Amino acid sequence: MNERRTSFRDIKSELERRIARRVWPPGAIMPGEEALAAEFGAARATVNRALQELARSGLIERKRKSGTRVALYPVREARLAIPLVRKEIEAKGARYAYSLLGREIVAAPDFLRARLDLPETARVLHLRCLHLADRAPFQYEERWISLDAVPDAADEPFDETGPNEWLVANAPFSRAEFVFRAARAGREEAALLQLVEGEAVFIGERMTWLADRPITFVRMVHPPSHRMVTEI
Amino acid sequence: MNERRTSFRDIKSELERRIARRVWPPGAIMPGEEALAAEFGAARATVNRALQELARSGLIERKRKSGTRVALYPVREARLAIPLVRKEIEAKGARYAYSLLGREIVAAPDFLRARLDLPETARVLHLRCLHLADRAPFQYEERWISLDAVPDAADEPFDETGPNEWLVANAPFSRAEFVFRAARAGREEAALLQLVEGEAVFIGERMTWLADRPITFVRMVHPPSHRMVTEI
Repeated sequence: MNERRTSFRDIKSELERRIARRVWPPGAIMPGEEALAAEFGAARATVNRALQELARSGLIERKRKSGTRVALYPVREARLAIPLVRKEIEAKGARYAYSLLGREIVAAPDFLRARLDLPETARVLHLRCLHLADRAPFQYEERWISLDAVPDAADEPFDETGPNEWLVANAPFSRAEFVFRAARAGREEAALLQLVEGEAVFIGERMTWLADRPITFVRMVHPPSHRMVTEI
Repeated sequence: MNERRTSFRDIKSELERRIARRVWPPGAIMPGEEALAAEFGAARATVNRALQELARSGLIERKRKSGTRVALYPVREARLAIPLVRKEIEAKGARYAYSLLGREIVAAPDFLRARLDLPETARVLHLRCLHLADRAPFQYEERWISLDAVPDAADEPFDETGPNEWLVANAPFSRAEFVFRAARAGREEAALLQLVEGEAVFIGERMTWLADRPITFVRMVHPPSHRMVTEI
């Protein structure tokens, strides 16, 4: 008997090593939970936990009937965290500041009606905001909120807190669509972000719905130093 | 008794409606599975499935002890699909083509050693490739593969199939890091992507490891028309 119990981490890294060395090549069926438990002198639950983590990382595929296989196409999805911009800035250890640049209630512009499938009569709250990290411009936010879906937004000044934080607490969504792209900064964006006109900016666009009802469209423009980072 | 059974979709959309109308505001505790099953005249398993989907979309939070709550911060993570570039192009209905621009075995350059934590003696395979959609440049790929981790790569010509497809089948990874950013196209990138020098390009960078062993670093450069899209 082992003095030290074999941990699920030990098992996980040994299994990773065998997959790396192609002891079990891509697509191969791996030994069952019971056989691995016997080999490692560990409880089945411990082996199960190791296999679960490997499956979550996409390295193996577990199927009830056909057993566990080494994945042919290992990892296909990353998780993309969608933090509040304030949290994103604070996580960098920087001081967050917010500034409201514009606020008006308008008829929904054509591009917005097309993107959110809004009726011709739709009225929206149009907001322009700047988010700063240690006094430097970090994100220029241009946002439209559907007043049909979120009538309370019309009463909010948004002069001290950004609309994202307010929406998160007041307008839940069930579906969101994201677009990320690169563009050259126009004159206004460049001035707001303290860039030379034409520099490359990183743009994130987000649309949200609750049960098929459009809530908001937002365009977030970042200076060329911006990095969107994620991992598997 | 109902003629038509209440489906989990009916229940899901009614629960979404109540959350939208703030019958249950953010943070509120919702009725239990049993109470909802009684109200909707449905099986508990049906209610459970509806709740599961709402939880997966981040709209509610289920905890064994304290019950089900409307989420305070509804959705915090999107899933980002990482397709092969060939699949990405084919999914648009375009014809895929691939061209190898350069292939050499070199000592790992400093920037790469720093990013992948490679030893001074590390040798890598450096590849430059172009991926086209309907004959138009879609992605310029510059890739480095660690020959310590993947010695077989040295024997591959990569003249007909891109390294991504080969790696997916031959070098599984357990961890990946992604960086997305915007930049202005340099002279070479601009020429390859048929852009004017200085246009904004969308860059994705990816590093992968298997069990702490660095495998590859790749920089994928796209023209300004590129959109990276995801949803929740």
